[in-house]
Amino acid sequence: MSDAISPLATPFPDLPAIAGVTPRIARAGYKNWGRCDLTYVELAEGTTVAGVFTRNVCCSSEVELGRQNIVQGQARALIVNAGNSNAFTGYRGREAVEQIMAQVADHLGCAKEQVFVSSTGVIGVPLPKDKAREGVANALAVPSCSWEDAARTISTTDTFPKGATATAMIGGVKVTISAIIKGSGMIAPDMATMLGYLFTDAAVTPGFLQECLSAANTRTFSCITVDSDTSTSDTVLAFATGHAGNAPLSSVDDAGADAFAAAMHDVCRQLAHLVVRDGEGASKFIAVTVSGAVSDESAHRVGLAIANSPLVKTAIAGEDANWGRVVMAVGKAGEPADRDKLSIGFGGVWAARDGLPLADYDEAPVAAHLKGQDVTVEVDLGLGEGRAQVWTCDLTHGYISINADYRS
Amino acid sequence: MSDAISPLATPFPDLPAIAGVTPRIARAGYKNWGRCDLTYVELAEGTTVAGVFTRNVCCSSEVELGRQNIVQGQARALIVNAGNSNAFTGYRGREAVEQIMAQVADHLGCAKEQVFVSSTGVIGVPLPKDKAREGVANALAVPSCSWEDAARTISTTDTFPKGATATAMIGGVKVTISAIIKGSGMIAPDMATMLGYLFTDAAVTPGFLQECLSAANTRTFSCITVDSDTSTSDTVLAFATGHAGNAPLSSVDDAGADAFAAAMHDVCRQLAHLVVRDGEGASKFIAVTVSGAVSDESAHRVGLAIANSPLVKTAIAGEDANWGRVVMAVGKAGEPADRDKLSIGFGGVWAARDGLPLADYDEAPVAAHLKGQDVTVEVDLGLGEGRAQVWTCDLTHGYISINADYRS
Repeated sequence: MSDAISPLATPFPDLPAIAGVTPRIARAGYKNWGRCDLTYVELAEGTTVAGVFTRNVCCSSEVELGRQNIVQGQARALIVNAGNSNAFTGYRGREAVEQIMAQVADHLGCAKEQVFVSSTGVIGVPLPKDKAREGVANALAVPSCSWEDAARTISTTDTFPKGATATAMIGGVKVTISAIIKGSGMIAPDMATMLGYLFTDAAVTPGFLQECLSAANTRTFSCITVDSDTSTSDTVLAFATGHAGNAPLSSVDDAGADAFAAAMHDVCRQLAHLVVRDGEGASKFIAVTVSGAVSDESAHRVGLAIANSPLVKTAIAGEDANWGRVVMAVGKAGEPADRDKLSIGFGGVWAARDGLPLADYDEAPVAAHLKGQDVTVEVDLGLGEGRAQVWTCDLTHGYISINADYRS
Repeated sequence: MSDAISPLATPFPDLPAIAGVTPRIARAGYKNWGRCDLTYVELAEGTTVAGVFTRNVCCSSEVELGRQNIVQGQARALIVNAGNSNAFTGYRGREAVEQIMAQVADHLGCAKEQVFVSSTGVIGVPLPKDKAREGVANALAVPSCSWEDAARTISTTDTFPKGATATAMIGGVKVTISAIIKGSGMIAPDMATMLGYLFTDAAVTPGFLQECLSAANTRTFSCITVDSDTSTSDTVLAFATGHAGNAPLSSVDDAGADAFAAAMHDVCRQLAHLVVRDGEGASKFIAVTVSGAVSDESAHRVGLAIANSPLVKTAIAGEDANWGRVVMAVGKAGEPADRDKLSIGFGGVWAARDGLPLADYDEAPVAAHLKGQDVTVEVDLGLGEGRAQVWTCDLTHGYISINADYRS
């Protein structure tokens, strides 16, 4: 965790405990940090699991093994190492992950495939096996911790701990989701992003849990970007213990399935926004809405071109309603667009319509909007019904300061 | 022109005059600049022209009209406005360009289509017709100026004037190319980039001139990036007066055609490198070489993913040999790559080979290399024979300072 807290930080919410889920933290000492850096979450027998992972082809062994093992659908434990991503470390990195899986499986008397490991931090340094072994042993011996402690322990350059919760009614039974996430830089999700973990007491089959998570991911984590850089370790996992006692959900047609899917979506959206609010150097939270595109997918790509443009992001950092840079970003996106049908606005006020600056454009309300912490950018392509929203933060001196001196 | 000069600046070269080419500068007063902002270059009768233009779909009227008029192959004048790009200004912007073309064509007694106009600066403000008319009238009345004056006058956020020259022998006749360019931010060429102008006394048919320019463009301007943002006004034009007296070149099979094409390539490469050396906030010039890709095109895309990665660029700004970020950028490029065959180096020293950090990696020579102004990054994908080189600069506080306070 960094010292200077993001100006966009929000307080850690009151996250309910989830029956069948026991988080603990310990110190492996991967870095010279004066804090815990290993998170262990024990899951009751019968817990189902679903996951989405980075599509970065240089992904870590943790991601490879997680992707392999998710298909059997059952989980008994999660281990998250902070300070070392163990990515690009070849067979030595893989051995370290397999050692952790075996150590925990031995302890719980479960299959290795039911132990999920994530690591985050510097790339290219093999996770030290001795430190990992001692850290896991420590974690197995300590009492459980709070969600906030766990959220702090999975963090690296994050400036505040991040959690979210939601509930749903399934056939008269209330189920709860509690979730934590870390992420601040190297954020440009491609199907999955960062390290995020959702825990629920609902009974859900692995297949339907995956369906809900994948659907939520497409409209939440895959719609945020901090810096256009896609991590090698991104992982979001959902665990369902079934301890709430509802009739198990196995398809969208089951009673309560809609409510559960909506709760999953709500939690994922909250988590995704928290990551943007902790974007490295962020001073503004930016929502970009693109409408009038030829398809939703096209709108999404135009939205990301805007949200990833350094010139758009620096203009908003400077509180400058420089809509010309938005035009530039639309034009370079490689998607259908017609300059003479394009409209651009900020904070709900059009600055340009149908390819022309508005003759009576009043910049005063837009200037006032841009001075706030929550900025909206509206783009209407005027071509069709395609629509998307993406979220990002501005690009400031803080990003440079954080990233020009991270590893050393 | 900005006050603080790029640390990567090079002195303006001694550019030879080109027979049949007369540059002049004047003041239109598009902005409250205490300097000339309109460049006029008169071209002798019979001058041929070729051009490459931005593929940003929100391009300016100048780009649209230039692309239309280049096909007739003849040019008599070039006008460059600085301080206002006239992009995204609808019919009013187009009227301003057509007015300039008509005014100059009247003066020279030539077809409007032989007058080429470029504009650069803020997007979304129609070029004021009265200022343009007076600026052009001023330019038509003054004596000729030096190449360096012209290079300064076409600039906006550039911190130093940029020019390049080369010669070639065509059947015993020496021909000369003199060229100027502007560009510093919003640099991510897509077939063409920035505003660049090449002038030669060689006799060359429009078709072959276009062939030479397009070929050079692919390996020079299309291989640089400052910030991944593609301008709406990018234009590179080549003019050939024929005053050197060589037998006209019309195909690659003509005697001297190879030498001429090589000279064009040399000048384009010099110009492209100068733009990167003046990249907004740049403190280091970075050459990224990708080899072992499945194709040259694939290598090019991997190179751009590295060169556009904010995390790679900030690491180099911080003189940190953080090759893990290069791995990340390779992995997100969307191109074939195999983590376990990947090798990464800086300054000719491998840090990782075949997917593993080198056991005997000595960071000292790499650290020394990164302290210099010219940094090289080498990536071997280990898959095939595809190869490419791209050039970029680092990402520093200077970029944020320049772009968070540009328009206002």
